[in-house]
Amino acid sequence: MSDRKDVERLTHLGSEKTTYTFEYNPQLLETFDNNHPNRDYFVKFNCPEFTTLCPKTGQPDFATLYISYIPDKKMVESKSLKLYLFSFRNHGGFHEDAVNVILNDLVELMDPRYIEVWGKFTPRGGISIDPYVNYGRPNTKYEEMAEKRLLYHDMYPETIDNR
Amino acid sequence: MSDRKDVERLTHLGSEKTTYTFEYNPQLLETFDNNHPNRDYFVKFNCPEFTTLCPKTGQPDFATLYISYIPDKKMVESKSLKLYLFSFRNHGGFHEDAVNVILNDLVELMDPRYIEVWGKFTPRGGISIDPYVNYGRPNTKYEEMAEKRLLYHDMYPETIDNR
Amino acid sequence: MSDRKDVERLTHLGSEKTTYTFEYNPQLLETFDNNHPNRDYFVKFNCPEFTTLCPKTGQPDFATLYISYIPDKKMVESKSLKLYLFSFRNHGGFHEDAVNVILNDLVELMDPRYIEVWGKFTPRGGISIDPYVNYGRPNTKYEEMAEKRLLYHDMYPETIDNR
Amino acid sequence: MSDRKDVERLTHLGSEKTTYTFEYNPQLLETFDNNHPNRDYFVKFNCPEFTTLCPKTGQPDFATLYISYIPDKKMVESKSLKLYLFSFRNHGGFHEDAVNVILNDLVELMDPRYIEVWGKFTPRGGISIDPYVNYGRPNTKYEEMAEKRLLYHDMYPETIDNR
Amino acid sequence: MSDRKDVERLTHLGSEKTTYTFEYNPQLLETFDNNHPNRDYFVKFNCPEFTTLCPKTGQPDFATLYISYIPDKKMVESKSLKLYLFSFRNHGGFHEDAVNVILNDLVELMDPRYIEVWGKFTPRGGISIDPYVNYGRPNTKYEEMAEKRLLYHDMYPETIDNR
Amino acid sequence: MSDRKDVERLTHLGSEKTTYTFEYNPQLLETFDNNHPNRDYFVKFNCPEFTTLCPKTGQPDFATLYISYIPDKKMVESKSLKLYLFSFRNHGGFHEDAVNVILNDLVELMDPRYIEVWGKFTPRGGISIDPYVNYGRPNTKYEEMAEKRLLYHDMYPETIDNR
Amino acid sequence: MSDRKDVERLTHLGSEKTTYTFEYNPQLLETFDNNHPNRDYFVKFNCPEFTTLCPKTGQPDFATLYISYIPDKKMVESKSLKLYLFSFRNHGGFHEDAVNVILNDLVELMDPRYIEVWGKFTPRGGISIDPYVNYGRPNTKYEEMAEKRLLYHDMYPETIDNR
Amino acid sequence: MSDRKDVERLTHLGSEKTTYTFEYNPQLLETFDNNHPNRDYFVKFNCPEFTTLCPKTGQPDFATLYISYIPDKKMVESKSLKLYLFSFRNHGGFHEDAVNVILNDLVELMDPRYIEVWGKFTPRGGISIDPYVNYGRPNTKYEEMAEKRLLYHDMYPETIDNR
Amino acid sequence: MSDRKDVERLTHLGSEKTTYTFEYNPQLLETFDNNHPNRDYFVKFNCPEFTTLCPKTGQPDFATLYISYIPDKKMVESKSLKLYLFSFRNHGGFHEDAVNVILNDLVELMDPRYIEVWGKFTPRGGISIDPYVNYGRPNTKYEEMAEKRLLYHDMYPETIDNR
Amino acid sequence: MSDRKDVERLTHLGSEKTTYTFEYNPQLLETFDNNHPNRDYFVKFNCPEFTTLCPKTGQPDFATLYISYIPDKKMVESKSLKLYLFSFRNHGGFHEDAVNVILNDLVELMDPRYIEVWGKFTPRGGISIDPYVNYGRPNTKYEEMAEKRLLYHDMYPETIDNR
Ligand SMILES: [Ca+2]
Ligand SMILES: [Ca+2]
Ligand SMILES: [Ca+2]
Ligand SMILES: [Ca+2]
Ligand SMILES: [Ca+2]
Ligand SMILES: [Ca+2]
Ligand SMILES: [Ca+2]
Ligand SMILES: [Ca+2]
Ligand SMILES: [Ca+2]
Ligand SMILES: [Ca+2]
Ligand SMILES: [Ca+2]
Ligand SMILES: [Ca+2]
Ligand SMILES: [Ca+2]
Ligand SMILES: [Ca+2]
Ligand SMILES: [Ca+2]
Ligand SMILES: [Ca+2]
Repeated sequence: MSDRKDVERLTHLGSEKTTYTFEYNPQLLETFDNNHPNRDYFVKFNCPEFTTLCPKTGQPDFATLYISYIPDKKMVESKSLKLYLFSFRNHGGFHEDAVNVILNDLVELMDPRYIEVWGKFTPRGGISIDPYVNYGRPNTKYEEMAEKRLLYHDMYPETIDNR
Repeated sequence: MSDRKDVERLTHLGSEKTTYTFEYNPQLLETFDNNHPNRDYFVKFNCPEFTTLCPKTGQPDFATLYISYIPDKKMVESKSLKLYLFSFRNHGGFHEDAVNVILNDLVELMDPRYIEVWGKFTPRGGISIDPYVNYGRPNTKYEEMAEKRLLYHDMYPETIDNR
Repeated sequence: MSDRKDVERLTHLGSEKTTYTFEYNPQLLETFDNNHPNRDYFVKFNCPEFTTLCPKTGQPDFATLYISYIPDKKMVESKSLKLYLFSFRNHGGFHEDAVNVILNDLVELMDPRYIEVWGKFTPRGGISIDPYVNYGRPNTKYEEMAEKRLLYHDMYPETIDNR
Repeated sequence: MSDRKDVERLTHLGSEKTTYTFEYNPQLLETFDNNHPNRDYFVKFNCPEFTTLCPKTGQPDFATLYISYIPDKKMVESKSLKLYLFSFRNHGGFHEDAVNVILNDLVELMDPRYIEVWGKFTPRGGISIDPYVNYGRPNTKYEEMAEKRLLYHDMYPETIDNR
Repeated sequence: MSDRKDVERLTHLGSEKTTYTFEYNPQLLETFDNNHPNRDYFVKFNCPEFTTLCPKTGQPDFATLYISYIPDKKMVESKSLKLYLFSFRNHGGFHEDAVNVILNDLVELMDPRYIEVWGKFTPRGGISIDPYVNYGRPNTKYEEMAEKRLLYHDMYPETIDNR
Repeated sequence: MSDRKDVERLTHLGSEKTTYTFEYNPQLLETFDNNHPNRDYFVKFNCPEFTTLCPKTGQPDFATLYISYIPDKKMVESKSLKLYLFSFRNHGGFHEDAVNVILNDLVELMDPRYIEVWGKFTPRGGISIDPYVNYGRPNTKYEEMAEKRLLYHDMYPETIDNR
Repeated sequence: MSDRKDVERLTHLGSEKTTYTFEYNPQLLETFDNNHPNRDYFVKFNCPEFTTLCPKTGQPDFATLYISYIPDKKMVESKSLKLYLFSFRNHGGFHEDAVNVILNDLVELMDPRYIEVWGKFTPRGGISIDPYVNYGRPNTKYEEMAEKRLLYHDMYPETIDNR
Repeated sequence: MSDRKDVERLTHLGSEKTTYTFEYNPQLLETFDNNHPNRDYFVKFNCPEFTTLCPKTGQPDFATLYISYIPDKKMVESKSLKLYLFSFRNHGGFHEDAVNVILNDLVELMDPRYIEVWGKFTPRGGISIDPYVNYGRPNTKYEEMAEKRLLYHDMYPETIDNR
Repeated sequence: MSDRKDVERLTHLGSEKTTYTFEYNPQLLETFDNNHPNRDYFVKFNCPEFTTLCPKTGQPDFATLYISYIPDKKMVESKSLKLYLFSFRNHGGFHEDAVNVILNDLVELMDPRYIEVWGKFTPRGGISIDPYVNYGRPNTKYEEMAEKRLLYHDMYPETIDNR
Repeated sequence: MSDRKDVERLTHLGSEKTTYTFEYNPQLLETFDNNHPNRDYFVKFNCPEFTTLCPKTGQPDFATLYISYIPDKKMVESKSLKLYLFSFRNHGGFHEDAVNVILNDLVELMDPRYIEVWGKFTPRGGISIDPYVNYGRPNTKYEEMAEKRLLYHDMYPETIDNR
């Protein structure tokens, strides 16, 4: 239905048959053009089906990821993001590393103005870990934005009772 | 009951028989006069019944829209807004485009001091997308307002588990 | 029990038999003295039983009002506020006008330092409307307060699904 | 991946390119074999993205459907169910008729032992309508099951405030 | 759009201009034919916008009504139900009487197989009152149904804290 | 407004000036006539503002009471119920005794067909106590009703975490 | 304040100085007389502060216990119950054993007509365990009561997501 | 167990037998030393069991109080705070006065760097009142803190529906 | 710490180093002895971290499983259950098959008196699927128990909106 | 699986057999290297299973702790944090001291850029206490960060009703 060039170039969206990879692979990520580059606006992805393996014990870990960014010229296509996140499935990594790696890959891919990644993991041994990483393009107002959002990050922690 | 001129001019409100259009049509939007133009105040529309089609696959998408603005001289009439939103029903468009287009149309219509549109879509492939766009009249304090609200946008993402 | 002059002067509180008026009447409002005028503090009224009529169709509308203010010398007595809000029952008015009128009447009555009124109405045609108005005494820091609170107003809209 | 005959026969699941129909079409429904016919068990579909048109006014209606059944030999394939429910999109029908028609079509399709359909619609004019229909195969214990479940249906209505 | 005779006969649905009556008037109620009389099924109305007056003090009361029934030949049309409930607006009546009267009027109107009305009022003096009335057609299994539903009525009262 | 004899006889409702008693006094309870004695129906009182004193330590205790009954000829008037519950304020009594005494007093007062009282107290020492008492008129079906409701009482305890 | 003999006999309630024992000790339990033995009624204890040790690993476990019973002649005093539950603090035991032991001790102590104990533990390794035990006095209707309550136990498991 | 002098001096904590006073008495308040005076930190008391009397009608009022402060040299002992709050039980006072008086007494007692008191009362006549008072030590940065917190106070009023 | 033979025999609990298998393997399941075989009681496992692959598309699926049973002589050890559920991670299977297979394996393992498995999956294409399977030992009262619990299964479907 | 030196050095994570200490022991804490020291980011621990003893009465206290920090070179390993928090189990300490001590120990251990600890305890005598402490490295922007976060701390206290 769409006649946009960049959309047609997309490999995954609406494709016949998708193959799923369960080893970390940032090559799965694809972009399309931002139609509204003259404007700063946010796009957020809610990703409650993220899973990876503990690098020390090999045990599965589970998290909900919230990825939010202000695009510049490129935007990450959501089906490719899904495949990319699936690629952590049988991959080992600490909670803190996972969110940092995802942020780095998305910065590399899109060169966004601003981006943040928040992981909320399920508990092990009664404690759960929630890492939060953000990034603003260096030497722009977005860098200051990242600093300000970090400064006031999560001052109202959600109630957690492990049930 | 009302004897206000601008209200009587409204086509849709309290009209006999409404015809619904399901192809995108910004002409459906109507305005009435702001009775309190000397004051900055907010009007918010909660629109949980928004639906459109994926431009790539043709599959229906669903969202709740939150539209919030500070009027200047004109205000959008809510029944005409309903009809306008209905006009996306069989129209194809990406999530990010929908909220940008709606914002653009309402700016065009009302020339508001400030406006923002937040879409919260249901997931496809386990991921949901929430675009947020705002606008402040250029070269006024409302432009700065838009920047500030974007800066602190959604620092407490709602909990999403796809159920 | 109280021996305060201003409290005894109150017509409605603890009175024998109250008569209810269902046509808009700001004369119903009464005040008592602020015992703590040396201090800035907030008083909020939660009013979930507000109802009025649509001026165009005559159909009943329903809202929860949140009225919050910093008193100066006078404070609005809560039973008189109840009677005043009842007086909208069979009165016609648009949502946006109702909150503006209530704010104006309370400013007129109490000359407060700061005040705000937020209406959250039930939907018509799938869309609900939430107007928010505020006021700070001109040429004081409260005017700036009003501007700042408007600037950051409602950046986390409550989830609405019409159920 | 599957080598089951009945699964391979499915038209929609994992197919290349799906075409969406928005006019009522029960032919879209497909079945696969029940692998556990020796056992009574329940399968429930949660369908929060159902929409249709009011037959009188043409206005869009929205509902969440809960469809729950005990299969006999055949089971409805979920992607075909999705397409079937999409086919109500531009079709006119009263709330009560929609749930009855869906139940009839699924009985016709699968000949299940037991089935029920519960629709929870969004309000119009401040009132929402929730029809509930069920069916047990005549002259079996499932017919009695249907009667018993109707007898104790919805004794704890969920709290509704239209917000 | 509909070509059903009984639907066309309806006065209120989709009518040009509705006049609202705020004095109790059961004549406002209208019916249409049950299309599925061969089947027992439930229709529930959620009515969170019910208001009436205290017969002793004249003070407004507010409730959410849940009306649920199994139709026989006739069904109450929802817009006429809305108008009927509006007609209590300036009418005086005790909580317990309101739900009994509504049940009686609907039995008179539709001669349903089964019906129940549950009112949940807001508190006065810190106490709220929730009356529940039901009815099954005498000398049928529906009479027994009414008895059984009353027997197990509301064994899990919702948590109430007046806020 | 009412011209009902039994309503006019009521001492408290709409009276000029109420005096509050804070020592246990069942004489405060008043009744009015049941207008619908031909029908079994429930009336429930939600009472979240109940407080009494621990008979051993004198420390205040707090509870929400849920009182639910099927009236026979008489019904307890809600304002008198409020005054009666206030009369426990400075009275000493164990949690279990309070609900038993209230049930006994209401049985004595109204001779209801069925009645139950559920108290949900706030914790002391990390443990909270919820007593539940019911009664059905002896040698009637209501006695059996009481037994059945006790049999299935509270099989889904609400989640309690003392916060 | 109380002049009841059995209440004065209580060791713990209102005592000067309590010593806490953290090794399992059922001797800590004390009773007082049931004032209403002619009536079947329920008393429930909500105990969200239960903790014990895993007998295999020595790691602390945490649970909320819900204890509900119909007293006969004796009732367990709540402060003594608190001390008894504290006595599990440094004691090792499996989840299933803990609830069985508590039930056995309370049966031994009070000889109640009916009693049940439900433990809801926090997860280890992503899975949480909720054991439920009940008891009715043998060869009475309470034995049948226990069977019936087990039969319909927990058919609506609370939603658990480990957060 | 503690060998801290200031802790031993405490009258109420762990005392044998406490006597409860139900007439306003600020002498009940006691302090202990702040062990961490070199650091600014918050202590909050959640007090959901506050009750007093309406000074005009004598009717009981109920509130949850949230008291939050930054200590300087002294801290209020929590059991003495409990007794102090109990002392309002049979005392008459308006909502606004109660929170102001409590703040004044705690300032007098502890000379804290910062303190705030928020009362959330249950409704009378359908309206509830929530006063909020704060204080920062004059001519310090805490005074500015008080002003800033007032400026942004309660911009997201909790949803109130009186149930 | 434990000196129970059957507990010592357990391979996984408290073991040094666990190896995780991600291909379906029922051999991972282990049992220990039921200490309370004279009593019918329930043990429930809440398992919100279940994931498997779609057999048709290879795409990951996610569910929360609720497993509830009445043990006979043997009980499933919870760490072995965790490993067993992990073994579905890279295994392909339909939702309905997964819950049937799990039930079959646990019946085979423990020969329980009664058992049920409820899966609540996340949506694909806007629809989520919740299969429920149960089993009672044939020709015992537990078989009848299974039938009764199926008869009244899930009459109050949880609200699902895919967010 | 990991080949990181600092990870291998960890004593507790994935160790054979853990011994639990229930007397306060900060030596239990261990660190690993921060892989992303060039970036400011947050790591939060949710710890709902914290328990200690009242130093005055010896009675167990319970809290949920939220610990959030920006790492510099070292990060606290979560299993060692668990063991450290367990070491408070039989240790006496006031609520305010516990959070201060934990913060001090973690600052000592990791020398983080920023850290905060929030304790939310269960009530004693109807009042619960929530202390909040934070720290920014002196003479850096993180010190200012600590001041700003304290300034706006907890302006929306969660609703507490002790149930
Ligand atoms: Ca939770
Ligand atoms: Ca959700
Ligand atoms: Ca949801
Ligand atoms: Ca809602
Ligand atoms: Ca809802
Ligand atoms: Ca709602
Ligand atoms: Ca409530
Ligand atoms: Ca509420
Ligand atoms: Ca909780
Ligand atoms: Ca709670
Ligand atoms: Ca969840
Ligand atoms: Ca949860
Ligand atoms: Ca509500
Ligand atoms: Ca929703
Ligand atoms: Ca609570
Ligand atoms: Ca509450």
